[in-house]
Amino acid sequence: MIAEIIAVGSEMLTPDRQDTNSLHVTRGLNDLGVAVAFKSIIGDNRQHLTDAIRIALGRADIVICSGGLGPTEDDLTRECVAEALGITLHPDPELVVALAKRFAERRQVMPPNNQRQTEVLDGAIVLPNAHGTAPGQWLDTTFGGHRKLVLLLPGPPREIKPLFDDVCMPRLAATLPPRHIARRQLRIALLSESVVDARTSPIYQRFQDVETTILAGRGEIQLHFVCAKPTLEEATARVNELTELVEHEMGDDIFSSHGESLEEIVLLMLGLRDQKLVLAESCTGGLVAERLASVVNASRSFEGGVVVYSAEQKTRLCGVAPELLEKHGSVSEPVARAMAEGICRTTGCTFSVAITGIAGPAVTEGPDSGKPVGLVYLALTDGEDTQVKELRISGDRERVRLWTSQHALELLRRHLQ
Amino acid sequence: MIAEIIAVGSEMLTPDRQDTNSLHVTRGLNDLGVAVAFKSIIGDNRQHLTDAIRIALGRADIVICSGGLGPTEDDLTRECVAEALGITLHPDPELVVALAKRFAERRQVMPPNNQRQTEVLDGAIVLPNAHGTAPGQWLDTTFGGHRKLVLLLPGPPREIKPLFDDVCMPRLAATLPPRHIARRQLRIALLSESVVDARTSPIYQRFQDVETTILAGRGEIQLHFVCAKPTLEEATARVNELTELVEHEMGDDIFSSHGESLEEIVLLMLGLRDQKLVLAESCTGGLVAERLASVVNASRSFEGGVVVYSAEQKTRLCGVAPELLEKHGSVSEPVARAMAEGICRTTGCTFSVAITGIAGPAVTEGPDSGKPVGLVYLALTDGEDTQVKELRISGDRERVRLWTSQHALELLRRHLQ
Repeated sequence: MIAEIIAVGSEMLTPDRQDTNSLHVTRGLNDLGVAVAFKSIIGDNRQHLTDAIRIALGRADIVICSGGLGPTEDDLTRECVAEALGITLHPDPELVVALAKRFAERRQVMPPNNQRQTEVLDGAIVLPNAHGTAPGQWLDTTFGGHRKLVLLLPGPPREIKPLFDDVCMPRLAATLPPRHIARRQLRIALLSESVVDARTSPIYQRFQDVETTILAGRGEIQLHFVCAKPTLEEATARVNELTELVEHEMGDDIFSSHGESLEEIVLLMLGLRDQKLVLAESCTGGLVAERLASVVNASRSFEGGVVVYSAEQKTRLCGVAPELLEKHGSVSEPVARAMAEGICRTTGCTFSVAITGIAGPAVTEGPDSGKPVGLVYLALTDGEDTQVKELRISGDRERVRLWTSQHALELLRRHLQ
Repeated sequence: MIAEIIAVGSEMLTPDRQDTNSLHVTRGLNDLGVAVAFKSIIGDNRQHLTDAIRIALGRADIVICSGGLGPTEDDLTRECVAEALGITLHPDPELVVALAKRFAERRQVMPPNNQRQTEVLDGAIVLPNAHGTAPGQWLDTTFGGHRKLVLLLPGPPREIKPLFDDVCMPRLAATLPPRHIARRQLRIALLSESVVDARTSPIYQRFQDVETTILAGRGEIQLHFVCAKPTLEEATARVNELTELVEHEMGDDIFSSHGESLEEIVLLMLGLRDQKLVLAESCTGGLVAERLASVVNASRSFEGGVVVYSAEQKTRLCGVAPELLEKHGSVSEPVARAMAEGICRTTGCTFSVAITGIAGPAVTEGPDSGKPVGLVYLALTDGEDTQVKELRISGDRERVRLWTSQHALELLRRHLQ
């Protein structure tokens, strides 16, 4: 059984935007034993899209369209699928009421073109979209004498992902022959892909029945293990066996063995130790705070902190002595130390991390001029000792900031361990 | 004139790998006035690929294949293009010599399947690949009575990019009629796509020669205008004409008319007014700071601020009176006001924005319990007045935080305007 994914939208034919939904959908389909054999990206053009859907119906068993379900003239997926299949659309009374209600609740007047979003393919089931106004559609039909599943899904990633996972996957699982998959995800920060691969490939290559994928990006390496077996027990046993061997090899370098993010792990460890963290960030400008705060219930272990971009605020908000800043510059071991200890004083906390560095461009005046881009100092105070770490991070401003935040969280994790 | 890009390779049909070459190729084609109307991703399957090439030849003037030119059995692009066009392949004597020499220089024995890389489509020109063993091919031919350009390019990004830029682009420019492209990007925060479309479509629909794309996401709408004309002056004039009419309709709602981000615009305006901004963030947890700090040279107008996640830190770092917090709760109009005014006192600045809200999940104890998720207060102080705005933002934690940061930056922008 093979699938085609059609991403609809002219923006994905520009140099700046790319279809990414298909990756998520592919993962789900693969779990159910369905291979994606074709992906097409088609603009908001009636003839092109209708033809492309017809081609897809001719070569795939499952056709999944993402995008083109919005309210504008450009949103043509519904009409083109109807035309390709030779069926008609009808307004769904429940959708009409729900949409009118949605606008009424917000005290907005509904623009008339929103009515398009209530049109449903004859014979299709409406898939409720919890995160947007455009519902999905599921049509179990025939084309050229063969059974075809046609799914219409919204384009925005935050709409399609839950709709696919929560609504389409159970439906697909009930429709397709049964299969059991076990997966595991190990995550490792700050090491290179080649180092991780050199250490782990002698192990995972012995597990031919477990599919291993190594993904690198954003300062971390992920090892994904997937195994399909007739029973879930068999699949889980194989994945666990491989995981244990890799954990033994990589040891403490693995920060997460069930896919949790580094910030989730750090917050979990702080919670277990009943510690409250405060931060003093300069070059990362709030990035570490933001990453921690993005986790649900972060407030249990994260108090907050300061973003001290200017030298003056390092003094005002962290109590760093002006002489220290003048003598050593903001990006220095003594200032990092003073920031970490100072933020504890101003907040009344005992546990802090401070970050100061040059994210780029280079500083051309004052005591930090001449210091290299990528020079970063991290300080960690736990109420007894303060440790300071000097880093040299290569790359542009964005990379220096991201890797600095990884180093800061990883320093915290290793300290808490 | 329209193009199709076919990315060949089964790895790009997995959940973990994506075609990215097409973005680079699209940018080059667009610069020459060629729109990419279709992108296809096809696995290493003879029948699928031959059919896909035939479909592409039927609907596009230029067909560019990337990948599938290597030496292995899996590398099928040459053969499938030949079959789709009904022509044959022949070994190119120069390529045979060059390849043999390459292996000899490295003192390696050439595996016999490497010969595949010397096979050239009848009538094609060989495009030398400076970074790999697989050369590209350029075929100017006809299909179904129409002239077609067919390009075969290697898959690895470090091979295709220089080959496309240095060899294909000059050839394409010499082959295609001279055309020039003008582009413009308008950005609008906080409005819905349907509202923006309802207000602008009567205008942009009158400009059939300007391609308009509306992109929605992350709390903003982008309007992209692209126009191709024989001269750059004509193209620019049309795009500017449309831009002016849309600017007249949307007025102040447009925050950027040359594609700058909201944070860039806010920093620019602060700089022009010689203002220094400080922030006090609760529910956004550093997100607004992080967005501002991501801009190069943000430090000229952004001093920093505090992330005050706990009630205690609202008092310690912003000087909010504990009685106020107890009486009204952290998420309240008086506390937002006190945070904005307090952060100015502690930092010695005159211009601040404070943010407090419930990003989710709901608060179950203390003075904020019972307040709805999505309730947010923004306060802005400019040294003279403090204004407070109450918001109700729908959606999950991530959406509430993101939209709150958009509202905060947009409040700042409108105030500075």
